Amino acid sequence: MTDFGLKDGNVGVMKGVIWGIAPQSQIIDLSHLIGPQNVGEAAVILSRSAPYFPQGTIHVVVVDPGVGTARRPIAAQIGSQFFVGPDNGILTAWLEQSENRGQESRFYQLDRPQYWLAEVSHVFHGRDIFAPTAAHLANGVTLDTLGSPISDLLRLQLPQPQPVPHGLLGEIIHVDHFGSLSTNIRREHLNPLLASQAELIVRLGGVEIKGMVNTFGERPAGELVALYGSTGNLIVSVVNGSAAERLNVGPGERVEVYLAGPHR
Amino acid sequence: MTDFGLKDGNVGVMKGVIWGIAPQSQIIDLSHLIGPQNVGEAAVILSRSAPYFPQGTIHVVVVDPGVGTARRPIAAQIGSQFFVGPDNGILTAWLEQSENRGQESRFYQLDRPQYWLAEVSHVFHGRDIFAPTAAHLANGVTLDTLGSPISDLLRLQLPQPQPVPHGLLGEIIHVDHFGSLSTNIRREHLNPLLASQAELIVRLGGVEIKGMVNTFGERPAGELVALYGSTGNLIVSVVNGSAAERLNVGPGERVEVYLAGPHR
Amino acid sequence: MTDFGLKDGNVGVMKGVIWGIAPQSQIIDLSHLIGPQNVGEAAVILSRSAPYFPQGTIHVVVVDPGVGTARRPIAAQIGSQFFVGPDNGILTAWLEQSENRGQESRFYQLDRPQYWLAEVSHVFHGRDIFAPTAAHLANGVTLDTLGSPISDLLRLQLPQPQPVPHGLLGEIIHVDHFGSLSTNIRREHLNPLLASQAELIVRLGGVEIKGMVNTFGERPAGELVALYGSTGNLIVSVVNGSAAERLNVGPGERVEVYLAGPHR
Repeated sequence: MTDFGLKDGNVGVMKGVIWGIAPQSQIIDLSHLIGPQNVGEAAVILSRSAPYFPQGTIHVVVVDPGVGTARRPIAAQIGSQFFVGPDNGILTAWLEQSENRGQESRFYQLDRPQYWLAEVSHVFHGRDIFAPTAAHLANGVTLDTLGSPISDLLRLQLPQPQPVPHGLLGEIIHVDHFGSLSTNIRREHLNPLLASQAELIVRLGGVEIKGMVNTFGERPAGELVALYGSTGNLIVSVVNGSAAERLNVGPGERVEVYLAGPHR
Repeated sequence: MTDFGLKDGNVGVMKGVIWGIAPQSQIIDLSHLIGPQNVGEAAVILSRSAPYFPQGTIHVVVVDPGVGTARRPIAAQIGSQFFVGPDNGILTAWLEQSENRGQESRFYQLDRPQYWLAEVSHVFHGRDIFAPTAAHLANGVTLDTLGSPISDLLRLQLPQPQPVPHGLLGEIIHVDHFGSLSTNIRREHLNPLLASQAELIVRLGGVEIKGMVNTFGERPAGELVALYGSTGNLIVSVVNGSAAERLNVGPGERVEVYLAGPHR
Repeated sequence: MTDFGLKDGNVGVMKGVIWGIAPQSQIIDLSHLIGPQNVGEAAVILSRSAPYFPQGTIHVVVVDPGVGTARRPIAAQIGSQFFVGPDNGILTAWLEQSENRGQESRFYQLDRPQYWLAEVSHVFHGRDIFAPTAAHLANGVTLDTLGSPISDLLRLQLPQPQPVPHGLLGEIIHVDHFGSLSTNIRREHLNPLLASQAELIVRLGGVEIKGMVNTFGERPAGELVALYGSTGNLIVSVVNGSAAERLNVGPGERVEVYLAGPHR
C-alpha cells in the first residue's frame, strides 16, 4: 500500500527490488491510490484489510511524508502478520484492533543498512529500505536481525465517537470508490442504543436518515440509506449512487446518531 | 473483475482471502474500473477477454447491485473455464459465444456456507462468498460440492444489430480507455454487405465515415476512422485521439452502416 | 508497461495469453497509465525502472501508435534483461544508460509467426505478438529462434541539457503522481557547478528557487523546493503539494539552472 499512484512505475520498481532478493514471493496490491501523504486514510484501510490476510503476510506500507528526515524506518510483527514502513502512525488502528483481541506485537527500528539497497536516496525509501527489508523477511531473516527492538512506536490520535444525550457523535473516516461514507461509529457502539427498540436517526450533512437497512437492494435507486458496512462500521450510502456527491461531505464531517422519541 | 475501483483495498482483501485458502493460486486483475453497478459493461469485457485465458481459469466477477438480496450467488463451468459471481446476467455474452462454439456449460447455486467465510456480511459477498468459493475451486473442490445444479440462469437481453434497407442498425456497446467506440456490429454481420464491393458508410453522432481502414496508422492523427477492433467488432476511433470526445457519444448511441450507392 | 489504462481488460488478456503459454511466469505491472501514444514518457519510465529489476526480467512494453503498420515488432537483450515491443524508440533512454555502463545489447526483428497467436489483429499486437513472444522467452526459447538479428534500431532524439553562461538549460521530462517535475538535468551535470560553492538558482515557470534541499521534510508544507529525485535527476516539488499545479507547467517546459553571483 502506497500513495504513489499507478502511473510512474514506482510500485513496479519496488516489486522488482523484492523479486531480486526473494524471487519466490507472491505480491499483491492493497491500494496505491491513498491520498498523497494521507497517513490517516492508509491507517483506516490497513486496519480493515489486514484481518483478511493469511498468517505470515508482510504488509509494506509506504505513505511517507517524512521520508529522508529523522522519522524512523520500522518493521513489526502484529499477531501472525508483519509490517514494514515508516514510523508515522499508519499502524495505529490495526494495532488497537489487534491488542483488543489480545494479540502480541513487536516493533523494530530498521538500522542495519546491509539489508537495504547499496545506495539509499533521500526521497524513495520504499524502494531503497522497505522493499529490500520485506524481501529479506520473506526469505526468513528475522526481525531481530533486521533491526533493533523499540517500544515507543508513534501512534495517531484516532477520533472516537462521543456520547451525547440519547445518542452518539462521530465522524466520517473514509469515502469509498462508490461514494459511500464510512463513519467511526461501529456496531458495538450502537448495540446499546438499538436495545431500546426505538428508531435510530442518523444526521449528517444537513439531512436525517430514519432507520437502518441491511443492504442496498432494500431501497430504490437514489435513496439515502444507513447500514453496517462490511467491517461493522455505520455507513451512509445512496443506492446505486454517491452519498459523498449528494451530501457534499467528506472525512472529518460530523455524524450524529440518536434515538427517535419524545426527548426530541 | 469488479466495479470496486482500486483505492479502498477491497480487491486486495479478496486476494488475501483467496491466498488464505489456496496459497498456490496465481491471481491477476481483469478490470476493477467497471462502471458502478454496470453489469452490461462487465458482460462485454468478460466475453471478449475470457477466450484468451487458459483452461482451468477461474473468473471471479463481482459487479453486484443486488448484494445481500435474494439474487443467487452462483458458480459455473463454461467450456474449460470457471466463473464465480452473482446471478445477474454478467455471463450472458460469454455464454452465447461459448454456446455458438458448441461448448458445454454447467451452473450451480452456491448454497453451502461451509465453503464461505464464517461471517457473511450483507454488503461484500466478493470477500465473504465468492473469493472463498473460487479458492476452494482452485484447490480442486468440485462444483457439485460447492453448490446445487440450476438451469434457470438469469440472462440479459443483449442488443443485436437490426437489418435496415441497404444496411444495418446497431449501437455502441463500449467506450475504451482511448475513447474508441466499440459497436455490436461484427465482422460476420458486415461480410454479406462487403461482398457487394460498394463502399461502406458508417454513420453515428451526426457524422459519416466513408470506408474502413485496417489500422490506425493508415490515416493522419486526428482523423475519424472505422475499422475492426481486436475481437472483430466494428469500432470507430480518432487516430491518436478520442472518438468519444470528438462525437460526444457513449454506450447505447445508435450506429448505422450501409452501402454507398444510387439507392441514397 | 502499456498505455492501455486499467478499465478495458486488455492488460489482463495479455497476462491470460502469457499464462496459457508459460504458466509458471510471474507477472507484475510497471505502468498502464502512460499517456496515450506517448512513447517518450514510456521511455523515461522504463529507463529509470529497469535497473531495479532482476536478471532475466522480460519487459513487455506496448505503447504502439504504429500498430498494424510497417513498424517492426522487436525483442532485445539489454545487459541481463529482455525487452519485447514495437520498434519505435521506447528503448532509447534505457539503452543509452546501459551502453554508458558498458553492457552489451542484441536486437531482433520478430518475424516468426509460429510463436504468435494463430490470428493476428491489426490493432492489438500486445495480445497477438508481444505477449506470446514474451511467454516463449520465459520458457527458454532463444531470441535467435524468435526473430532475425537487426542493428538499425529506431532511436529517439532525447533532449540533453545545454550549457549557458554560468549554468545549464534543460527541460521537464516527466510530471509524477504527486505533481513533482522531473528534469533532464542530472546530478553529474550539476556537480561541476556545485564545486564553486555558490548558491544554485533554479528558474522555471516564471519563478526562481534558491538552493537545493535533500528531502521534502526540510521545508514547510506548501513551499517550492528543488532536490535530486530518486534516480539522480533534478526535480522541483511543492512540499505536500503539486508543483505542476502551482506552476502550471508540464513536459517540454524549459528549466534553467545557474549560479547566484555578481555575474547576474
